[in-house]
Amino acid sequence: MSANPIQPTIPLDGQGKQHGFLRLPYSRNDSAWGSVMIPITVIANGEGPVALLTGGNHGDEYEGPIALQQLAWEIDPADVTGRIIIVPYMNYPAFRAGARVSPIDQVNLNRAFPGRPDGTVSQKIANYFNDVLVPMADVVLDYHSGGKTLDFLPYAAAHYLDDKRQQAACVEAVKAFGAPYSMMMLEIDSVGMFDTAVESQGKVFVTTELGGGGTASARSAEIAIRGAKNVLRHSGILAGEVEPAEGAQMLDMPGGDCFHFASRDGLLHPLADLGDQVKAGQPIARIWPPDRTGIEPVDLLANRDGVIAARHFPGLVQSGDCLAVIAAFHTGDA
Amino acid sequence: MSANPIQPTIPLDGQGKQHGFLRLPYSRNDSAWGSVMIPITVIANGEGPVALLTGGNHGDEYEGPIALQQLAWEIDPADVTGRIIIVPYMNYPAFRAGARVSPIDQVNLNRAFPGRPDGTVSQKIANYFNDVLVPMADVVLDYHSGGKTLDFLPYAAAHYLDDKRQQAACVEAVKAFGAPYSMMMLEIDSVGMFDTAVESQGKVFVTTELGGGGTASARSAEIAIRGAKNVLRHSGILAGEVEPAEGAQMLDMPGGDCFHFASRDGLLHPLADLGDQVKAGQPIARIWPPDRTGIEPVDLLANRDGVIAARHFPGLVQSGDCLAVIAAFHTGDA
Amino acid sequence: MSANPIQPTIPLDGQGKQHGFLRLPYSRNDSAWGSVMIPITVIANGEGPVALLTGGNHGDEYEGPIALQQLAWEIDPADVTGRIIIVPYMNYPAFRAGARVSPIDQVNLNRAFPGRPDGTVSQKIANYFNDVLVPMADVVLDYHSGGKTLDFLPYAAAHYLDDKRQQAACVEAVKAFGAPYSMMMLEIDSVGMFDTAVESQGKVFVTTELGGGGTASARSAEIAIRGAKNVLRHSGILAGEVEPAEGAQMLDMPGGDCFHFASRDGLLHPLADLGDQVKAGQPIARIWPPDRTGIEPVDLLANRDGVIAARHFPGLVQSGDCLAVIAAFHTGDA
Amino acid sequence: MSANPIQPTIPLDGQGKQHGFLRLPYSRNDSAWGSVMIPITVIANGEGPVALLTGGNHGDEYEGPIALQQLAWEIDPADVTGRIIIVPYMNYPAFRAGARVSPIDQVNLNRAFPGRPDGTVSQKIANYFNDVLVPMADVVLDYHSGGKTLDFLPYAAAHYLDDKRQQAACVEAVKAFGAPYSMMMLEIDSVGMFDTAVESQGKVFVTTELGGGGTASARSAEIAIRGAKNVLRHSGILAGEVEPAEGAQMLDMPGGDCFHFASRDGLLHPLADLGDQVKAGQPIARIWPPDRTGIEPVDLLANRDGVIAARHFPGLVQSGDCLAVIAAFHTGDA
Amino acid sequence: MSANPIQPTIPLDGQGKQHGFLRLPYSRNDSAWGSVMIPITVIANGEGPVALLTGGNHGDEYEGPIALQQLAWEIDPADVTGRIIIVPYMNYPAFRAGARVSPIDQVNLNRAFPGRPDGTVSQKIANYFNDVLVPMADVVLDYHSGGKTLDFLPYAAAHYLDDKRQQAACVEAVKAFGAPYSMMMLEIDSVGMFDTAVESQGKVFVTTELGGGGTASARSAEIAIRGAKNVLRHSGILAGEVEPAEGAQMLDMPGGDCFHFASRDGLLHPLADLGDQVKAGQPIARIWPPDRTGIEPVDLLANRDGVIAARHFPGLVQSGDCLAVIAAFHTGDA
Amino acid sequence: MSANPIQPTIPLDGQGKQHGFLRLPYSRNDSAWGSVMIPITVIANGEGPVALLTGGNHGDEYEGPIALQQLAWEIDPADVTGRIIIVPYMNYPAFRAGARVSPIDQVNLNRAFPGRPDGTVSQKIANYFNDVLVPMADVVLDYHSGGKTLDFLPYAAAHYLDDKRQQAACVEAVKAFGAPYSMMMLEIDSVGMFDTAVESQGKVFVTTELGGGGTASARSAEIAIRGAKNVLRHSGILAGEVEPAEGAQMLDMPGGDCFHFASRDGLLHPLADLGDQVKAGQPIARIWPPDRTGIEPVDLLANRDGVIAARHFPGLVQSGDCLAVIAAFHTGDA
Repeated sequence: MSANPIQPTIPLDGQGKQHGFLRLPYSRNDSAWGSVMIPITVIANGEGPVALLTGGNHGDEYEGPIALQQLAWEIDPADVTGRIIIVPYMNYPAFRAGARVSPIDQVNLNRAFPGRPDGTVSQKIANYFNDVLVPMADVVLDYHSGGKTLDFLPYAAAHYLDDKRQQAACVEAVKAFGAPYSMMMLEIDSVGMFDTAVESQGKVFVTTELGGGGTASARSAEIAIRGAKNVLRHSGILAGEVEPAEGAQMLDMPGGDCFHFASRDGLLHPLADLGDQVKAGQPIARIWPPDRTGIEPVDLLANRDGVIAARHFPGLVQSGDCLAVIAAFHTGDA
Repeated sequence: MSANPIQPTIPLDGQGKQHGFLRLPYSRNDSAWGSVMIPITVIANGEGPVALLTGGNHGDEYEGPIALQQLAWEIDPADVTGRIIIVPYMNYPAFRAGARVSPIDQVNLNRAFPGRPDGTVSQKIANYFNDVLVPMADVVLDYHSGGKTLDFLPYAAAHYLDDKRQQAACVEAVKAFGAPYSMMMLEIDSVGMFDTAVESQGKVFVTTELGGGGTASARSAEIAIRGAKNVLRHSGILAGEVEPAEGAQMLDMPGGDCFHFASRDGLLHPLADLGDQVKAGQPIARIWPPDRTGIEPVDLLANRDGVIAARHFPGLVQSGDCLAVIAAFHTGDA
Repeated sequence: MSANPIQPTIPLDGQGKQHGFLRLPYSRNDSAWGSVMIPITVIANGEGPVALLTGGNHGDEYEGPIALQQLAWEIDPADVTGRIIIVPYMNYPAFRAGARVSPIDQVNLNRAFPGRPDGTVSQKIANYFNDVLVPMADVVLDYHSGGKTLDFLPYAAAHYLDDKRQQAACVEAVKAFGAPYSMMMLEIDSVGMFDTAVESQGKVFVTTELGGGGTASARSAEIAIRGAKNVLRHSGILAGEVEPAEGAQMLDMPGGDCFHFASRDGLLHPLADLGDQVKAGQPIARIWPPDRTGIEPVDLLANRDGVIAARHFPGLVQSGDCLAVIAAFHTGDA
Repeated sequence: MSANPIQPTIPLDGQGKQHGFLRLPYSRNDSAWGSVMIPITVIANGEGPVALLTGGNHGDEYEGPIALQQLAWEIDPADVTGRIIIVPYMNYPAFRAGARVSPIDQVNLNRAFPGRPDGTVSQKIANYFNDVLVPMADVVLDYHSGGKTLDFLPYAAAHYLDDKRQQAACVEAVKAFGAPYSMMMLEIDSVGMFDTAVESQGKVFVTTELGGGGTASARSAEIAIRGAKNVLRHSGILAGEVEPAEGAQMLDMPGGDCFHFASRDGLLHPLADLGDQVKAGQPIARIWPPDRTGIEPVDLLANRDGVIAARHFPGLVQSGDCLAVIAAFHTGDA
Repeated sequence: MSANPIQPTIPLDGQGKQHGFLRLPYSRNDSAWGSVMIPITVIANGEGPVALLTGGNHGDEYEGPIALQQLAWEIDPADVTGRIIIVPYMNYPAFRAGARVSPIDQVNLNRAFPGRPDGTVSQKIANYFNDVLVPMADVVLDYHSGGKTLDFLPYAAAHYLDDKRQQAACVEAVKAFGAPYSMMMLEIDSVGMFDTAVESQGKVFVTTELGGGGTASARSAEIAIRGAKNVLRHSGILAGEVEPAEGAQMLDMPGGDCFHFASRDGLLHPLADLGDQVKAGQPIARIWPPDRTGIEPVDLLANRDGVIAARHFPGLVQSGDCLAVIAAFHTGDA
Repeated sequence: MSANPIQPTIPLDGQGKQHGFLRLPYSRNDSAWGSVMIPITVIANGEGPVALLTGGNHGDEYEGPIALQQLAWEIDPADVTGRIIIVPYMNYPAFRAGARVSPIDQVNLNRAFPGRPDGTVSQKIANYFNDVLVPMADVVLDYHSGGKTLDFLPYAAAHYLDDKRQQAACVEAVKAFGAPYSMMMLEIDSVGMFDTAVESQGKVFVTTELGGGGTASARSAEIAIRGAKNVLRHSGILAGEVEPAEGAQMLDMPGGDCFHFASRDGLLHPLADLGDQVKAGQPIARIWPPDRTGIEPVDLLANRDGVIAARHFPGLVQSGDCLAVIAAFHTGDA
C-alpha cells in the first residue's frame, strides 16, 4: 500500500512552539494542484509524555476548536514537559463548511478509521492520524459536541474497555478533565471510530460532549479550555494543579432503551429540557404535523427513569431521528 | 391591479373551530397546477374582538409554530368570545425548508409588506395578510425567535409609535403576554415589516423574540403558549385570567451602539452569554482565524453597559455579522 | 422604454424558406458576450395571410416542437400562399432544460405577457412575440401538452371571448385543427397568458393540449402535425383540403368544480383513467402515505359527472396539486 | 465483516398483521443520529410458505408501491396460510426522491446485490434483503416499471436459468401473475441484480415491467394488484382461485438486436407506439436537432420484426439512449 | 424612496489614509443580521480634485483589484493633492465567488445603474456609487478585463459622447493611462452601464480592458498599476510625471460587423490569436463537434480587415457566443 | 472479475478510416438505459505499428482534443502504414462538463488506472484503455495542458524510467514531437497515472503540457497538431518527414523545491510570467487579502534559479495551491 501523502510543514519533533499545517495534496476542478491545509501546532519542551489534542473531528462542533486555538496561542513552552500536538480542525474541509461530514467525500471522519493512504480525502486524514500522530502520543483528548443537530449536557467520557487497567487510566483522565458531568459509555458499534483507533493502540483516551446546536457559549468554551489544561496537568505535561470540578456527576448510558426515536416527521415540541429528571412513561416530546392544524400530536414517552442527557436540536424532525437520550446516574465503579 | 389569488378552504367568518388551508396556486416545474397550502385554523364563538395569531413569518423560528399548533388543538370554542385566526406557518415554504427566507423566491417575508397580488409567492402571501386578514383583526400577535443564526433573551416587544394611545395599548398587551423580558424598540428601518403593516392599520400589535438557534426548548415553548393565552385573555377573547410573569424586566434598545459587528471571518469564541451584564470596554467575544493557529485573535469590546440580549449563534462568523446586542434596562415610561 | 434587444438572423419578410434564429444577447458567468439562440423558420410565397405557429411555450411539452420541426422541414414554399412563421422552441432555455419554466429566471413564459424589453430573458422573449411577431400574424396556433406533471385528453381549444365574431372564427379554426376532442374554456385568470396577448390583438387563436407526461407518442405527434396543416389549409395559406377528424367530441370546462385537488402528500393510486366517464361521488383517485404502511388511504371523489380530461402525472403528489379535471360534454353553441 | 445495522421495529416472525419499519441508522449533516425508515408489513397466519413482495427497487416505478400498499391494507390474516412480507418502498430514499437511484449514494439498488453490511446506505439495504429477508422466503415477487425514462408493455417475466426445474416454477408463477404479456429474458449482464441474488438462493422469482414514465394508471395499478394476489394464491398463501389473464401473450427478448440506440442528441419524434407490430427496416423513431430548424432528421430503423415492447419516454434524447426494444412472439417452451 | 442602507465605516471626507468598508446590511438564511462588507480606502491630502478608482465591477476580472490593492497600500498621502477613493472589489459578492455576476441576485452590476436603494444587493451597490461616490469625483477610472470567458488586447477606452469637450477630456485621460492600445467605442446599448452613469454626471471617465480569462499576468498587472498612477498624475492628484506608453496604438470598434458569433456548439479551434492582423474572408476560428469525430468543422470567417482585439476564452463554445472582435486602426480624431 | 462493459461501435481492427464510439452503458436517473458515448476514430492501412492518440484525459484541456479532431478529419489512410487509434475526449463526461474530473463520479481519470471493469464510469474507462487499447499500441501520445487552473510553457515530456532503453525511445519520441520545450520528469507519486499504465506495458510514451487556463490558442493548437504528426512520422506510421522544432529547449524538474505553494488565501498578483528566468530569493508572486485593503501582502520568493514553467491560473488562490513551478535547464543526458 502506498505511503500517506500528507506532509507536515513543521517538524513534529522540534522544540519550542511551532505553528504550521498538515498538507494533503488534493487535485480537483478548481485547483488541479491544490491541497487541503490542516492547521497544527506543536509545543515541546525536553523529554516527557506526549499529548495529542484534537477538535473538529466533526466539522460543526465548536468547543474543541475554540479551546485548542486558545491553548495553541496561550501555552508557554516553558510550562511544558514533553510535547503537545494540537489539531483544532481535524476534518478541516468539514470545519470550513460548518458541517458534520466532509463536503468533499461526504465521509463521517469518526467512522473512517483506520483510514486508507490511497482513499478519499477523509480516509487519508484518518489514516495519517492512525498511523503517524496517535502512535506518537501517550494521551489523546478528542473534543466532541452535538453539532448542528444534537445538544448534550456537558460531559467528558470514557468507554468500558477489555483492558481494565487502561480503562481505569482513561476514567482518571476523564475525572481530571472536570466537566460538569462524566459519562461511562458502552459503544454498541465502535467500528471506524477514532476512539477505537486510539484505544486499540493502548493510549489513555478522553472524549467529550460539551454542548451542541452548532454553537458554543462562553460557559461551554470555558469548560473545554479548563478541561484540556486539567488533562495536561494530570498527565504531567503542563505545570500546575488540576482544577477540580465542583459537584460533578457521573452518568451512565447503560443500554439501547436510553435512545428515543421519532416515529413521524413534523414540528418538535419539547416537553423536557437537557438536565431535567424524568420518569418512565412521562411525555418528553411532542410532534405536530408539519403540514396542517387540527391533528392530534404524537407524544414520545420516556422509556426509563433518568436525566435528559442529549436531545435533537432542530425544530423539525424526521421519522427515525433520535429525539432524546435518557442517562442514568452511575452507581457502580467505572 | 389583479385580485389576490389566495383562497381559504374554510370560511373565515364561520362559527366553532375549523381547520383548513390558504390555497395559493403555484405553477412550477414539478407541479404545473400545484399550490402552496398554508394551514389555518379559525375558532369563533359569537360576536367579539378578533385576534390574528401568526408564526413562521421566518421559517426557522419555532416557538410560534409550536404554540399555535397547541392552541389550535386545545382551545375550546366555548371558551371564546369573538374570533381567533391562527396561522402557525405564515411563510409555509420557508417553514418546510427550515429556512429564514422562502426557498421559492428568496424573499424575507418580513420585509415584503404590503406585498403584491401579482408578485412572487412571498409577495402574494404578504399581500393576503395585509389586505384580508389584518383588516379583520383587532389585535395581532406575531411570533419571532432568533432563527438558526441568532439567539435572544425571551421577550415580547412593542414599538415606539407616533400614536401614543396605540402605543400604550400595545405595551399593555406586551406586558400581558408575560415573557421574562419586555422590550421597547425603535425600528430604524421599518419599511416592509409585518409590524409596520399591522401598526399602520391601527391595530394592537405584539411581537416577540423567544430564543433562537433554530430550535425551541420546553421552557421557551411554555413561554410562547402562556403568552398567547394571556394576550387572548387580556383582549377579552379567551376566558380566564391573565397569568402574570414573575420578575419580568423591561429592556430598551436605545440606539445603533447596541449592535456589535464582526470585523473579520473566523471561529467565534464567546466571552459573555445571553443575560450576562457587561460593562463598556469589556471583551464580549473573540474571533480566531478559521485557517491557521498561532495568530492573535480579535476581541470585540462592549460599546456600552447593559445586558447581552441577542447574540450570533453559529460557531463560524463572517465579517459584518452582528455578533451581539447589548440592551439597557428600561427606565422611563413606555 | 428601450427597444427589444432580440434580432432575427434571417429576414422575417423574405420569400421562400429560410431557417435562422432569434438572437437574444445574454451576458452571464459562463459567457460574458453570449446569446440565447431561438430557432425560427419562415416560409413565404407571395401575398396572403400570415400564420404564426409556436411550440415550447412550456419547455417540457413535445407535440408542438415535433410538429413544427416536421412542418419547417416538409412544407414546400410552392404550396404556400402568404407566410408561415414557425418557432418550435419558444422558451428555448426551458426546452433545452426539459422544464416548464426557464432555468434562467424561473419564469413561466405563459404568464409573462406582454413582457418587457428590459426585463429578464423570458420577459424579453414574451415582449418580442407580443410586439413584433403577433402583430404580423392573422392566425396564431400555440401548442401545449401537459408537460412532465399533467396529462390531457388530446384537444384543441378556444376561449369564450367578448367579441363573439372573433370567438366564432377561433372555434372554426379549432374545429379545423381536427383533434379527437375540442374544448371551450373560460379562463378564470388569463392575466399574462400568450393566449390573452394574441386574442387582445384581435387574432384568430388556437391553443391545444395534446397529451403530456413529458413525452409524445406516434399518435399524439400525428395529431399535432395534421392539426397544423389543417389550420393552415383552413386559413388559405397551405394548399389542400382540411382533413376532418372522425368522431371528434366537443367538451366544456364550465367551472371551478371541474378541478380536483389533493388534500395530502403521498403516493397516487389512480382509480380512473383519461377518457373514463365518471359519476359525481365516484372515487377517482386514492392517496397512500409515502412513509408508512397500514394507514387508511384518502380517496378523492368526483365533484361532478363527466369525463376525465386531465390528470396529475407523477406517481407522487403534494397537497394542493390538481389531481384531475372532469370535463362536461358540450351542449350549447360555441 | 460486521453485522448489518438494519433492525426491524416489528418481529418478522410474529402472527397476524403488523406494520413497522426497517430502521437503518444514517448519520448525516442534517441529523447526526438519524435513520432511514423503510416501511414493512408482515401478515402471517400459522405455518406455510413465505412470500416476499417488493416494490420501489427503483424509486420512480409506481405500480409496485401502489399494489403493495393496497395489499398491506386489504389482506385479512384470516385468508393467509403462511407469511407475506411486504416492502413497498425497498429503496426508500430513492422512492421519496422520485428517482431511480438513491439520492444518498447515487447507487442503483438493482446492481448493488449482494451488498455490504458496512457499505453505503443502498449497499446496506441490498445486504439486508440478501442475507435476512430473501432466505426467509419461498417465493419473491419484485415489481418494476419503466420509471421516468422508459415505458413498457405490461408484462411479468422469468429468466432462462441453468436449473430448469427452478425455471419452470418461475414460469408457472409468471403465468399465474396474469399480466397482459409474459416475457422470457436472458440477462446479458445479471451481476448485482436482485433477480440474480434471489434466483441464486433457489427461490421462485417473478419480476415485472408494468408501464413507466414515472406514473401509474388505474389500469396498470389494477394489473399489479391482481398479479400479486394471483401469485399468492398460486403459492397457496392466499385463499381463493387464480384469476387468469385473458388473451395474454408470451414474448421473448432473444438478443442484442432487440435494443435500438440513439445515435445523436435531440428531440424524439416517435413513429411507432408500444404494442405496435413493426417490420425490420421500418422507421420507428426520428430525432430532430434540439438547436435549430431546417436540418434533415435522423431516422431509426427497426433491426428486426416484432412488437415494440419498450421505449424511451422523455421527449429529449441523448446519444446512446435506448430508444426502443422490439420483442418477438415466443414460440418455444419456456 | 427610502435612503440607501449602505454606510461607510470610515469617513469619506477625512484626511490621510484610511481603510474601511462600505457596510451593506443583508439578511439571509445563513446570517439573519449579516452584511456585505465592501473594502474601501480613502487617501486625502488638502484640497484638490477627487478620483474614484474602481475594480471588480465584474467579479472575475483581476487587473483592477490587483492595481487598486497595490495603490491603496503604496500611495503616500504626502504625494497626494486632493482625494483618492479606492474600491478594488466593487461587486464584492461576485469577486469572492470569482464570477462575473453576483451570486446573490445574479445581477450584472454593469447593467444595474443607476440602481435602487430598496432593490437587490447589486442594485443597492449601484445606487450607492451613483448617488454618493460618483458625485464626489472629478475623474473616474473603472477597470475591466475579459473575465473568465473573454480575452482582450490590453487597452484603455473612451466613448463617443455628445459633449465633445467632455469626450476630449476623457480621451486625454485614456492616453495618459498609457495602455499598449487605446480604443474609441460607440456603445450600441449603454443602458444601465456604470460608464453611462458616470458620463451622464459630466465626469472624466476612463474604462479599460486589460486581458482576461479569469487571470492576470505580471505584465497586465504592471499595465494596470502604471495606468492608474498616470491618470492620477494627469489629473494633478498624484505627484510625478505621466509615464508615456511606448508605441501605443489607437483602435476603433466602428460597427456591428466587428463582432463574430458562433453558429453552433462545440470545441473551439482558434486559427488567429489576439493581436493578429486578419483580412476579410480569412478563417479565424473553427468549431469541431463536441460529441463525435469525422464531421466537417464549421469555419468562422473574418467579416472585415483588422486586428483581433477580443476573443472567446473557454475551449467550449455555445451557439451565439461572441467568438472574436476585429478592431480597426483608428484614423480620425477622437 | 466481470468483463469490461464498453463496446466499440466500429471494428478496432478494420481497414481504412472509420468513426464511431466506445459505448459504455450507464444507468442513471435521467436515462435508465443510457450510455456514455466516447468518440473514436480508427485509421488503418496494411500492417505496421499502432499508435494510440488520446486527448481529454482531463476534461478542461483543449490542445489534445483540437489536434485529434483535426487529425481524425484530415489524415488520409493512404498516407498511413499501420494503424492510428484516436480518442480525442477520453474522459468524455468531464470534457462535456469542461471540468478536470468527471461530473459523474468526481474521479480524476489520470489517477484511476488500471481501473476496474465493475467500478464507476471513470474506472471503467480507465480499465478499457488499460486492458484493451494500450495493449494494441506500440506508441502512445497522451495530451495534457494546464486545464482551467494551471498554465504551462508548451512542452512534451518523458519520464525517468528504470528501463533505460525504453526511456531513450520515449525521449526520442518527445524530441520528435517538436514542442518549444522538452521536459524530463521524475514523478514522485505515479500511482494510478495513465503514464504509468502505459509505460509499465513497455510502450513508447509521450505526454505533453501545451498551455492551459481552460483555453487553447492558434499557436498552441498548431504545436499540438504538428507534434502528433511528427510522432506518427517518427514512428513510421504517417508518411513524411519529421518537422523539427527550432530552438527547442530541454528542461528538468529535478525536485520538490521546484514547486511553490500559497500560504494564504487571496488575490494573486503575479510578479513573473511563464518563461521568465528568475533567481532564488526573487519575489515571483504576491497575495493580497480578499476581504480588505491596507494589509501588507505576502510575497512568494523563488526557491531556486530557473525558468517559470507552470503557474496557477485563476485570479484567486487558496492556501496550499501550487502557485508556480520553476524548472531548470537540462544539462545531462536524458
